This record gives sequence, structure tokens and C-alpha cells, in this order.
Amino acid sequence: MGLVVGLDAGGTSTRALVLDFDGTRLGAGVAGGANPNSHPPEQAASHIRQALTAALDGLDPAKVEAGVLGMAGSSKLTDPAVAALFEAAWAGAGLRCPMRVITDCEAAFATGTASPDGTVLVAGTGSIAARIEHHELVSTVGGYGWLLGDEGSAFWLGREAVRATLVALEQDESDALSTAVLGQAAIPDMPRRDQWRRLITAVNNTPPIRLATYAPLVTAHSTAPSADRIITAAVTALADLAEAARPEHDRTPIVLVGSLIHAHPLGARLKRELAARTPAPVHVATEGAAGAAWLAAVKVLGETAPRPA
Amino acid sequence: MGLVVGLDAGGTSTRALVLDFDGTRLGAGVAGGANPNSHPPEQAASHIRQALTAALDGLDPAKVEAGVLGMAGSSKLTDPAVAALFEAAWAGAGLRCPMRVITDCEAAFATGTASPDGTVLVAGTGSIAARIEHHELVSTVGGYGWLLGDEGSAFWLGREAVRATLVALEQDESDALSTAVLGQAAIPDMPRRDQWRRLITAVNNTPPIRLATYAPLVTAHSTAPSADRIITAAVTALADLAEAARPEHDRTPIVLVGSLIHAHPLGARLKRELAARTPAPVHVATEGAAGAAWLAAVKVLGETAPRPA
Repeated sequence: MGLVVGLDAGGTSTRALVLDFDGTRLGAGVAGGANPNSHPPEQAASHIRQALTAALDGLDPAKVEAGVLGMAGSSKLTDPAVAALFEAAWAGAGLRCPMRVITDCEAAFATGTASPDGTVLVAGTGSIAARIEHHELVSTVGGYGWLLGDEGSAFWLGREAVRATLVALEQDESDALSTAVLGQAAIPDMPRRDQWRRLITAVNNTPPIRLATYAPLVTAHSTAPSADRIITAAVTALADLAEAARPEHDRTPIVLVGSLIHAHPLGARLKRELAARTPAPVHVATEGAAGAAWLAAVKVLGETAPRPA
Repeated sequence: MGLVVGLDAGGTSTRALVLDFDGTRLGAGVAGGANPNSHPPEQAASHIRQALTAALDGLDPAKVEAGVLGMAGSSKLTDPAVAALFEAAWAGAGLRCPMRVITDCEAAFATGTASPDGTVLVAGTGSIAARIEHHELVSTVGGYGWLLGDEGSAFWLGREAVRATLVALEQDESDALSTAVLGQAAIPDMPRRDQWRRLITAVNNTPPIRLATYAPLVTAHSTAPSADRIITAAVTALADLAEAARPEHDRTPIVLVGSLIHAHPLGARLKRELAARTPAPVHVATEGAAGAAWLAAVKVLGETAPRPA
């Protein structure tokens, strides 16, 4: 019986999954991150091979009829030297089928729905919405990165938490969120004006992306007035992003992915907001490797390929 | 007859002015920047002394009865080692009166009005509003710097110009502003999706503050729909900033300062917006050194000290 493989290569880990044509999971493997933008390409490729080898343990790789690699930073593989390293890792794991590379958005979308068309909304450290047609990404909205955008992302939430704390210090109206921000930034008790200055300095003395580390304080103190305002703004920004990536009156599914989808109460409020705006079904993405593996099965069996069990 | 001196120490230049008690200008001097946050303190102090020495050329420094140093980064002088360098520069120029240090906001406010109370709104590379009472800064709104704020500033305008260009590329709706942004970023003619990617990469490969270099494109192409939207948003953000720094129904003057005040049509639209929101007089700041010198005269003669001629 034939097999398919799917991989999900992210910044911190790479997951591989082997399915048979019934959607039964026959093997799984995990290795370090393989995003070629954040890892040396040699290391990224080696992690691909490790994850594949572990997932294929005890199986005959020659039986794999189709394989899909979903990855953040997939555009890096337009560099022939990088692509060659990944191809070598693929072949080194014993695979004879072609390596098909897709974006992490396409893989995430396929984990949430069997529909070929719809929208994927990513709300993690960054934010982006993508339009999917025939399983493929055709356009995006947002995804500009922390300097130019990422509205509603963890970076943005953390930055808003610091900004709200600066306003609280200006107006002497602290709440649970501003107290928590000052605590995490290790700003001691001192006159408010000095705390204000110290907080600005502390944030500017660390890499900007570290602002995302303040995001969990917003959801942890979600009943504080400033946190509630930030969550409301994030939910609006994320729903706007999803909506901007869709034709009007579209009824295709929306698949949500990213750490913030699981952050209470932000994720639940986002789902309610989308349900209020559109009659489309809203799903939450699961494992990217399963989405990639299912897309590999679709290549062989067509749209009716069984979903991973 | 007694003299007063005023200094305006900024990031790129330091200006000194000597007045007599009639407000007549007797001497002026210019030297390099003396912001101790952006220059080594020794160099900053040496520029202070140079500007003072030039302004006092042919005059008797012992006759100076009061002097005020207005500077960006004045809080750095709470460091005794830095303060000692500045005191030495002051004495080295022959001054016997105490060195009084004020913020650039206080000096700018005093250039625009003789009122002891009011609001100063700074719209340059960054943005901040300050409440002035009895000639002294008592509170601020904004001024968080590019990473955390600076709404309506040149940094913000430039970032919005790039963001509008990314949206234009997503939607295939270019206008004069997006064309100019792609030109300045040296993005060649290629498929829109590639231009989108290249623009994000180009911006992220330079120091973030360089986004301010795109700001002049917004005012230069102010009739382009995206530029008009950005200018409207900047005017609203800046007017909000000023308003947040004032008590309700306040009638004290507002003094505007910074490069954007002189950027057509942004400055004129900001003045109209403030006039529509408040009956308070709106003035534009002139030379900070004149404001500092006038505040020095106030120390000796009181509120009726003649304004610099």
C-alpha cells in the first residue's frame, strides 16, 4: 500500500507525518527548526532529513507516492543552492517522489478544512491573512513584520501593553496590566515620571521583537480596563485582516492559526467577532504536518482523499 | 548694562544668543550638536563652549546676569559627571551666573509666546506634546520614540507611506505616492508580489528611524489619495496629542515646533484643525535660543522682560 508524507517546518521545530491512503498515521518524527531564514540552510536541511527519517522508521520510503513540505520562509527555496540542500535531505531520507514545497499558510489551512478555497488568518508573534484557492495561496493581506505592521499580533499586543502603561504613568491611573508590565520590565518603585523614562529606555535597549513577551500579560489581566481595550482592538484588527483577504459575502471557511488563537479570552472573542461578521464556518488549525500530508494524499487520490485520522 | 544668554542645544547644532535687557541682539554663535544622548558628553560640552564664546565675542561675559540652556536630552545632566563637563564649558566661556538647564520644549514654547502657561506640540522626526505652567514643563503626552509611538511624526508619516505602498501593491492600485516610495527604495519594475517582498526587505535592512526619509514624499504628493489619507491621520493624531496635554476648555496658547509644521500642506492643515477644536491662539516656534534668552531675562526682570527683537 502506498504512503504519503507531510512536513511542517517552522522556526523552532520540524514535524513529519506518514499516512497511508486511509488517512491512518503510520509514523511521526520531530526535529529542530528548519526555517531557512532563521537557521543556516545546511542545518535546516539536516532537520528536514532527521524528521523524515524518524517518521519513516520501520517503513519503506520507496513506497511514499507523494510528499509535501509546508514551511515558513518557503520563498527562500527559490535560491537554487538552498533548494539543492533540501532536495538532498529529501532524497537522503530515501524518498523518490518529488519534494513539493508549500507555505505554512497553505498547510495550516488544510489542517482546518478539506475545502479547496477559503481564508487563513495567522495570529502569532506576527499576523497575516491569506486567500487560498484550489489549496494554494493566491494573495495575502498584512504580514509586513513588526516594523511595518503585524496589527493584532503578539508583538503588537505587547507593544500596546507598554504604551498603555506609559499612559497610565502619565495619568496616574495604573491597573493590573500596567502593574504587571512594570514588574516584568523590572522597573522599581520610584516617581512615576522616572518609571516612565525607565520603561521607554528598557524597551529600547532590547531587540524590538522582545515586545511580544509582554503579550501574555494582556490576556492574563484581561479584566483590567487597559487590557480589555487592547484585546478589543486586537480582535477588530485581526477580523479586519481576515475580511480584507476575502471577497464580499464569501462563505468559504476561515481557518485560524497561531498562539493567540489559544490565548484566553482573545481567541474566543475573535471567533465570536468573525461569527458576527460572516456566515462562513470558522475552524482552528491543528498540526501543519497533517495538513501537508493530506495535501500530498490529494495529489494522488484527488479531493476525496481521507482526512488524517 | 547687563546681559543675558540663551542656548539651544540640539542634535545637529547648538545656537547661542546674547541679549541686552532691551531685548536687543548683541551676539550670536553656532556650533555642532550638543545633545549628550547623541554625542559624547565631552564633545557636546565643547560645542556649548564654542557657541557661547562666539556669541560673546567682543562682549564682557562677566556682565551676563542670567543664562539658560535649552536642550534635547536635558535629563542626561542629572548625571553629575556629565553636568560637571557642561558647568566647566559654561565657566570656561567666562560666565559667572549659574547655568540653568531647561528642556527644548520649554525653550520652544517661550519663542512662540510670552504666556507662562500653555502647550507645546513638537512634530519633527518624533512627536510629543507638553504642558507648560509658569514657563516650566509639568507633564507630557507621547514622546515614546519610534518603537512605541511617535504618531504623526516624520517617522510615522514615512512608515505609513511604506504601508500604503504595500497595500497598493496588494490591490494593484498604485498612485503618485506609492510610485515615489518604490522609486526612493530603488525597487525595480518587476511583478507586484516581488516588489512587495523587496520593499519589506529593503526597509528592514536599514535602521528603522530611516523610515522618516519617506515622509517628504507624503507632503510632496499630497494630492495622491493615499497621501491625503495619511496627512489627515497625522493631523488628527497631532491635534489629539496637543489636546490630551491640555485641560478641557483651556484658552492658553499652543506653540507648534518641528519640521512638519513647515511641511506643506500638513502644517497649515494642523493649524486649521487646532483652530476648529479650540479658541486658543496657535503660534509657530522660532529660534529656541531666543526663547531661552528671553527666559533668562525673565529671571532678572520678571514677566515683563522685553521679547527678543
